[in-house]
Amino acid sequence: MDTVAITGHGSYLPRHMLSNAELPPFDQPLSDDEMERIGVHRRGWADDTEGIAEMAAMAGQRALERAGLEADAIDLLILANWTARRYIPEHAPRVLRLLGAKRAFGWDISCACAGFLYGLGTAHGFLQNPRWSRALVIASEHTSRRGRPGSKAKLILGDAAGAFVLERKEGTSGRLIDFELATDGAHHEIMDISPESWVRTHIQQKELNALAGGSMCAVAQRVLDRSGVALDDVDWIIPHSGTAGVQATVVRELGAAPEKILANFDSIGNVSSASIPTVVDQFVRAGTIRPGDLILSAAVGTGWYAAAALYSVGAG
Amino acid sequence: MDTVAITGHGSYLPRHMLSNAELPPFDQPLSDDEMERIGVHRRGWADDTEGIAEMAAMAGQRALERAGLEADAIDLLILANWTARRYIPEHAPRVLRLLGAKRAFGWDISCACAGFLYGLGTAHGFLQNPRWSRALVIASEHTSRRGRPGSKAKLILGDAAGAFVLERKEGTSGRLIDFELATDGAHHEIMDISPESWVRTHIQQKELNALAGGSMCAVAQRVLDRSGVALDDVDWIIPHSGTAGVQATVVRELGAAPEKILANFDSIGNVSSASIPTVVDQFVRAGTIRPGDLILSAAVGTGWYAAAALYSVGAG
Repeated sequence: MDTVAITGHGSYLPRHMLSNAELPPFDQPLSDDEMERIGVHRRGWADDTEGIAEMAAMAGQRALERAGLEADAIDLLILANWTARRYIPEHAPRVLRLLGAKRAFGWDISCACAGFLYGLGTAHGFLQNPRWSRALVIASEHTSRRGRPGSKAKLILGDAAGAFVLERKEGTSGRLIDFELATDGAHHEIMDISPESWVRTHIQQKELNALAGGSMCAVAQRVLDRSGVALDDVDWIIPHSGTAGVQATVVRELGAAPEKILANFDSIGNVSSASIPTVVDQFVRAGTIRPGDLILSAAVGTGWYAAAALYSVGAG
Repeated sequence: MDTVAITGHGSYLPRHMLSNAELPPFDQPLSDDEMERIGVHRRGWADDTEGIAEMAAMAGQRALERAGLEADAIDLLILANWTARRYIPEHAPRVLRLLGAKRAFGWDISCACAGFLYGLGTAHGFLQNPRWSRALVIASEHTSRRGRPGSKAKLILGDAAGAFVLERKEGTSGRLIDFELATDGAHHEIMDISPESWVRTHIQQKELNALAGGSMCAVAQRVLDRSGVALDDVDWIIPHSGTAGVQATVVRELGAAPEKILANFDSIGNVSSASIPTVVDQFVRAGTIRPGDLILSAAVGTGWYAAAALYSVGAG
């Protein structure tokens, strides 16, 4: 198989990042202790000018700049989104137009919170075809809008977009080393959407955390085993930041050093499929993640989906 | 690149196929002449037991039988659907469970009426990876439910599912020879969905037919040119059967012999992404399409998507 490099990454956060004090009232007021335990201090709420396509194009543009590419160099776009997806039309064609990516084809996938990693896997497949050399994978979510007003979900859910540029290219410091995708229809009904378009969970939060943590660890371990990489050799673990509880489960079950976990759940909340690329972008810009550092990511999504990837990020 | 074989196909039509006389009343009664010009005589309306996943599993099961495969042999499923897609959960995990495909991962794509061909392209990519050998691509649509009651759309839109089995395999009579995917965001707003979840078209039908026909011919010609295949060498042309007008445009613009066009628009209506695989399945079973016959398919979908594929179908 041809090597797929990761040569760019970018992210976009809404202009309006709400502090906990700025949130509209909850049905049942939350104590400071409870807020602290949940762990989210700020989250973005996209305004009317920050549509899925606009946020995706901003994150994509930043990723292209880091990769040193013009939009016209892109052959395909996979856009992960489930929070604003309603029949027709999809968002990806509009993102291509906003970017000015005239040669590319592109479409939307969902896979709930696992969408970004499923997108990486899909792009990896297309890049095995000599006709195509460069892909954008973007996740862009209005997660906040799928939370019932007055519910605790409004504390946790935030909006964001994140992007990677993938290229069929040897010898770069950023590389998609391996990935794992898994689907289990046995848990198909644990979450769904209400008539008002708000997320409903039909199992206890504790049970959901255990399922999510267990699924993430299983796919992550499979990637490590197949790649012959020990967890000790991994520099950073970036799980989908669904809740603080899921992260704790991952640390415990994987047996990972807690200081290797990178997350932005506290500062931007659960941004669904956009969480992994926004964490990568934030911690590269902060100087924490360096080119070539070995990163292990895992995510789950209701459906039920699980996905993991072993990779490093570099520049074009 | 590795050869991708097409070793199975199957389809499913709803138990209840409505004749024109059985349809509920239209806002403006249609004359017999007008009905004849539109050209649809029957269409399926799925009942409550014929969900997207159930119809998909039936078509998928039939395709697996033709390929001589158990469900457990499948590595991945791409399910094309846009007509019943609403946030979470997706349908593909449930289809995998209904089929008993325990090893597979699978998810939904949309791309409107072009979804099946985008699904073939996606599966082709994954099958370049030695880890995966067999894919199911299924389209399953409740198209009838996206038409406004009382409108002409209720005459045209029908429900159906169709499936192909793809395998990384040499020397079979069925083969995915080449495909083309194209996306144009410039036409992003020509169709959308009403608050009641019905399709709205914001340009004239004549203009839509011209755009659809032109797009289909452009991608079909690109596939022929790249493959070095002349239109005369193609045995059958199976365009997405959106309307009779689109088919006429394809015949005229491509310069195709009308007798090479295979369609089931008259007997099942516009079943969106499911049209191409249901036509293939119907005409193989009728003995019209034989193993190894060269088939050219093209489809468009609002977004704006266009896709084409050159292929033959065989058995496992």
